[in-house]
Amino acid sequence: MFFASDNGGPMLPEVMTALTRANEAFAMPYGADPIMEEVRASLRALFEAPGAAVYLVATGTAANSLALATICQPFETVFCSPTAHIHEDECNAPEFYTGGAKLTIAGTEDKMTPEALRTAIAGQQTRAVHGPQRGPVSITQVTERGAVYSLDELRGLTDVAKSFGLKVHLDGARFANAQVALGCTPAEMTWKAGVDVVSFGATKNGCAGVEAVIFFDPEKAWEFELRRKRGGHLFSKHRFLSAQMQGYLEGDAWLRAAEAANARGAQMAKGLRAMEAAEIVNTPDANILFARLPRAAHQRLHAAGAQYYVMGGDVETGDPDEPLLCRLVCGWNVSKADVARFLELAGGDA
Amino acid sequence: MFFASDNGGPMLPEVMTALTRANEAFAMPYGADPIMEEVRASLRALFEAPGAAVYLVATGTAANSLALATICQPFETVFCSPTAHIHEDECNAPEFYTGGAKLTIAGTEDKMTPEALRTAIAGQQTRAVHGPQRGPVSITQVTERGAVYSLDELRGLTDVAKSFGLKVHLDGARFANAQVALGCTPAEMTWKAGVDVVSFGATKNGCAGVEAVIFFDPEKAWEFELRRKRGGHLFSKHRFLSAQMQGYLEGDAWLRAAEAANARGAQMAKGLRAMEAAEIVNTPDANILFARLPRAAHQRLHAAGAQYYVMGGDVETGDPDEPLLCRLVCGWNVSKADVARFLELAGGDA
Amino acid sequence: MFFASDNGGPMLPEVMTALTRANEAFAMPYGADPIMEEVRASLRALFEAPGAAVYLVATGTAANSLALATICQPFETVFCSPTAHIHEDECNAPEFYTGGAKLTIAGTEDKMTPEALRTAIAGQQTRAVHGPQRGPVSITQVTERGAVYSLDELRGLTDVAKSFGLKVHLDGARFANAQVALGCTPAEMTWKAGVDVVSFGATKNGCAGVEAVIFFDPEKAWEFELRRKRGGHLFSKHRFLSAQMQGYLEGDAWLRAAEAANARGAQMAKGLRAMEAAEIVNTPDANILFARLPRAAHQRLHAAGAQYYVMGGDVETGDPDEPLLCRLVCGWNVSKADVARFLELAGGDA
Amino acid sequence: MFFASDNGGPMLPEVMTALTRANEAFAMPYGADPIMEEVRASLRALFEAPGAAVYLVATGTAANSLALATICQPFETVFCSPTAHIHEDECNAPEFYTGGAKLTIAGTEDKMTPEALRTAIAGQQTRAVHGPQRGPVSITQVTERGAVYSLDELRGLTDVAKSFGLKVHLDGARFANAQVALGCTPAEMTWKAGVDVVSFGATKNGCAGVEAVIFFDPEKAWEFELRRKRGGHLFSKHRFLSAQMQGYLEGDAWLRAAEAANARGAQMAKGLRAMEAAEIVNTPDANILFARLPRAAHQRLHAAGAQYYVMGGDVETGDPDEPLLCRLVCGWNVSKADVARFLELAGGDA
Repeated sequence: MFFASDNGGPMLPEVMTALTRANEAFAMPYGADPIMEEVRASLRALFEAPGAAVYLVATGTAANSLALATICQPFETVFCSPTAHIHEDECNAPEFYTGGAKLTIAGTEDKMTPEALRTAIAGQQTRAVHGPQRGPVSITQVTERGAVYSLDELRGLTDVAKSFGLKVHLDGARFANAQVALGCTPAEMTWKAGVDVVSFGATKNGCAGVEAVIFFDPEKAWEFELRRKRGGHLFSKHRFLSAQMQGYLEGDAWLRAAEAANARGAQMAKGLRAMEAAEIVNTPDANILFARLPRAAHQRLHAAGAQYYVMGGDVETGDPDEPLLCRLVCGWNVSKADVARFLELAGGDA
Repeated sequence: MFFASDNGGPMLPEVMTALTRANEAFAMPYGADPIMEEVRASLRALFEAPGAAVYLVATGTAANSLALATICQPFETVFCSPTAHIHEDECNAPEFYTGGAKLTIAGTEDKMTPEALRTAIAGQQTRAVHGPQRGPVSITQVTERGAVYSLDELRGLTDVAKSFGLKVHLDGARFANAQVALGCTPAEMTWKAGVDVVSFGATKNGCAGVEAVIFFDPEKAWEFELRRKRGGHLFSKHRFLSAQMQGYLEGDAWLRAAEAANARGAQMAKGLRAMEAAEIVNTPDANILFARLPRAAHQRLHAAGAQYYVMGGDVETGDPDEPLLCRLVCGWNVSKADVARFLELAGGDA
Repeated sequence: MFFASDNGGPMLPEVMTALTRANEAFAMPYGADPIMEEVRASLRALFEAPGAAVYLVATGTAANSLALATICQPFETVFCSPTAHIHEDECNAPEFYTGGAKLTIAGTEDKMTPEALRTAIAGQQTRAVHGPQRGPVSITQVTERGAVYSLDELRGLTDVAKSFGLKVHLDGARFANAQVALGCTPAEMTWKAGVDVVSFGATKNGCAGVEAVIFFDPEKAWEFELRRKRGGHLFSKHRFLSAQMQGYLEGDAWLRAAEAANARGAQMAKGLRAMEAAEIVNTPDANILFARLPRAAHQRLHAAGAQYYVMGGDVETGDPDEPLLCRLVCGWNVSKADVARFLELAGGDA
Repeated sequence: MFFASDNGGPMLPEVMTALTRANEAFAMPYGADPIMEEVRASLRALFEAPGAAVYLVATGTAANSLALATICQPFETVFCSPTAHIHEDECNAPEFYTGGAKLTIAGTEDKMTPEALRTAIAGQQTRAVHGPQRGPVSITQVTERGAVYSLDELRGLTDVAKSFGLKVHLDGARFANAQVALGCTPAEMTWKAGVDVVSFGATKNGCAGVEAVIFFDPEKAWEFELRRKRGGHLFSKHRFLSAQMQGYLEGDAWLRAAEAANARGAQMAKGLRAMEAAEIVNTPDANILFARLPRAAHQRLHAAGAQYYVMGGDVETGDPDEPLLCRLVCGWNVSKADVARFLELAGGDA
């Protein structure tokens, strides 16, 4: 019963197969391998973007920071939500990679609204050279709290950005889960919705460590290559990044994985909603739930070996009925049975 | 016939096996996986350094830059040879990671001498706050031109560093090849020789992408963890870095791989030395050769599909007897037969 | 009638005299001038801090950024108020000088409270290496909205910082105005209240461009010297910085200047309070007021050549009774008569 | 007898007068003062560059670093001579301001030659994304060893830069001394000779601390303003920078000062050449000499209170005839009598 994160899971069989297949003889290094050529073509086709610039890196933080550094000057500020991974969970990586740009928080909610974004942007660059200049907007889809922006909501945000002439970055660490939730195409969730550059995450959803960064307007993207190199993110044996992405895309393995993850999320949500003692506190649009469960439930789950984060207090000691907040993430390889068992233990004698 | 670099080869079977074995169920992310615990213990044992701080990253540039940034202030200068990878081939990564430190070149040769190093160090920090302050010394072993420092030579350099109170970094992108060439222990080539922190490369010698960074004095090493995170080099699915290193070390797979590579290097050197028209221009102590071959030889080799770098001029056009410089690197998976065939083609009707 | 800022005024006669006096023959450069020796002694005596490290720079942004960079690592975050000059008005200078540290906003008010600060600090470093680590607290005294922290309030904030083991920086761009308002000693407002390093501003209160940075614990302060040099803030003809500070301190010129400025602030506050149509919206503890005046009042003032910032809307067009927000700053050389005239015009026929 | 540097001298009377004149009433801050408007017009006229972007900063390091950061990307390298101030004497300021660019040394001489520059440039950017990309060329005029490039020599260097499509920066810390030495116009020594941006130094030649940065093509120069602000180099009381430059240019005060300095340099050179025991080791084209004098001469000079740098060894102890290297710089306010006295003492009983 592992619900700590979707980064605790293994590689998809298809990814493992592609990796094994790639592991023979010789290949030109640094992205000149033939598998990368195939991957580039696949991603361009998938995104209906024949001219897009496509790069691979190994981590989400690298993808986000390098993408932002390419479109953000050191004297500018990035706009994002208060829960944004780039703000909370990258130990100042965007500040590092941009050479000292700032992050400006739009609103107080996990999901940015056009109004909050407009207010945040309007509040900057009103001080001539004294304040930071307006830089790109970064949107996370699926959000860090498990919500999915509808296409209209995305467009609402990018419209605000465009009205100020700003570029838009999409942090798609859980791109597949969002796409499956919306039932849309990759193009609809990106450039057709006003996104300029996307971090197309694959690690969480079944790879070992690979993310694509895709610039829909390839102009200035060459700079990304140099920034990737000096960031130490250009792999010499690049074929092993290429192969992961190849296997991930092959036969829509990635979509099936996200469907499985989201289905487990829905199963968990349904079960908790049916439980009087449980309270879901987020909008679990994909595979992430935030919920309150009584301390006694956590104690039963812990005793049974369930792994997940409890942020609401001390599980061991206190009133057994007190509700404690926890985060539950369903990776692609979480089983139906594990969710059922979790629910059974959570429900207990309630 | 692939002699372009040792980064064009595949994973060792042992590494692939470990990777496959690691690919099941769940593991805690970010280095809290049990395989990493094992790897940490293995590397500490291997280096006879029970208190060492051990970290994994995926690229050599990351290993070098993060190691240097941890021991070098932005207002200092790193001392290295003119051919150092950190100087020539990392697109200013050390400058980036250190926040703007400088690199000062010691001497004019691939192999630093104590005299050249002493002169370079003495020449700095003579200008109070106006010039950069003295920072760490970085030594590459195997050097970028294929030479291996003897233990005495290493000690000669670290003695100079110590006499100025400076720390020493060893860029061991080809650590295994050097160790095999010297027939020494890892401890003898590092802390026993005065090295403070080592980039223990594994990628070139049979992994997909993993390098260990080992601090023999773990004080201040915690900073490395934060710098790794903000550099985007902390892997969420860290077990796949751990597993590579596990397989690499298992049953001395890494040493056998380096022995194979060096043996092919020796085979190549012997063959070229026997060839009147060829001239080896470096000291091929491990698996790297720089040699001049007549243009006609290159033409025959190219026609047969041999892959390697020619830096000495245009292969296609010109006097067939004109010698052109090339670099030949033997990876662990280069076959005896391929070297033999290369030599045969190179020798031609000579 | 100049109320735009206290940076629009001239040098104090005492400063001009010292500058003229210093302008002869030769002096050793880079801070080795004898005037600096005297200034160092004066500031140490003034602050009752015989061991303090004392440096001069020419701008407040340099003073703040260099002070923070000396006590804040790139992977940390500075805590400050939402109106902090370092956050709003330095175009990412702290991010630049620290090598990419973050600024975390404590509370929503101009004046930080211990509770808001504690909440902000507690909310950081809860994510291991994933979030930024806790760095120094920066307090502005006089605040950017014209309020002055009492010594108890200061102590309340520094107590919180100390309880987390964090250092405290005081941005004293208007140090003199605050000290005069509190009627305390420099030591009471700094190290006796828990401040570790202070930007002792002198530019606004009567110099051409000089600020002292004082570290009460001089350990690690040597780093400041190197950061100052590489920031381009070490003056070769340093005696002209020294002389400004010498004249500023001579015979308490600085305190008389601040008394004059604060008196004009009080005169303005008293006059506006007596005016039905005016509303003061800040706590004008020193020489800065934020007030709402009817549009007609602004029109009369503008017509008479008064200079100050109106942030509340368009002065030219609209309902003459509509109140518009403005900022009024009284420099040391603003005359009683100018304030009286301003009030007369503002009051109009009301 | 002060020959330590031209940064040990006072302000020109004209500069002091302008500063005094500027010290009254109120002026808009941050460069919006009317004196700056006049200065901008004066410099544009002086340089015959009506469209040029003109900025003031207070130090030479700031001028050089901000100019370079505006025209150099973090993944590029600047080309300069081994003695360049930006390389040796700015404690990594260019590396800091550019966000981690590298400096590549062209040749081994104080004066770059077109051949050395071409070789240095050709040697870079031959490694695709692995090495730094080619960035701007920076030339110092007067050089750090006292030589002046002829207009033809300047053009020879800028032609090489242009042939690679690179921009050219001129470090004119001693611009006036060079211009006087060449008897040319400012335009001839800058844009007519292929210079794109110049640091027009004024501090050494008679100001307290002001340098102009002039971009002949103002496109992208707006970025300079933001970099200046975030570097802490935008003065609030900017009129005191403006006034210095105003006084400096007024009635050609700056040229007379440089003429005086160069004349003293020539007087010193003539005197030393006539002295058997003295040896001039540089080409003293302006106001800087490097010479060897016997230890006994240094001892006599030191005893008489002469101030200058001896780099060749210990003055106090050793063979009285042993020649020791020293640097002698004649500021604008060095008197004929002081040079004569220096020569007399140096010559001694010879």
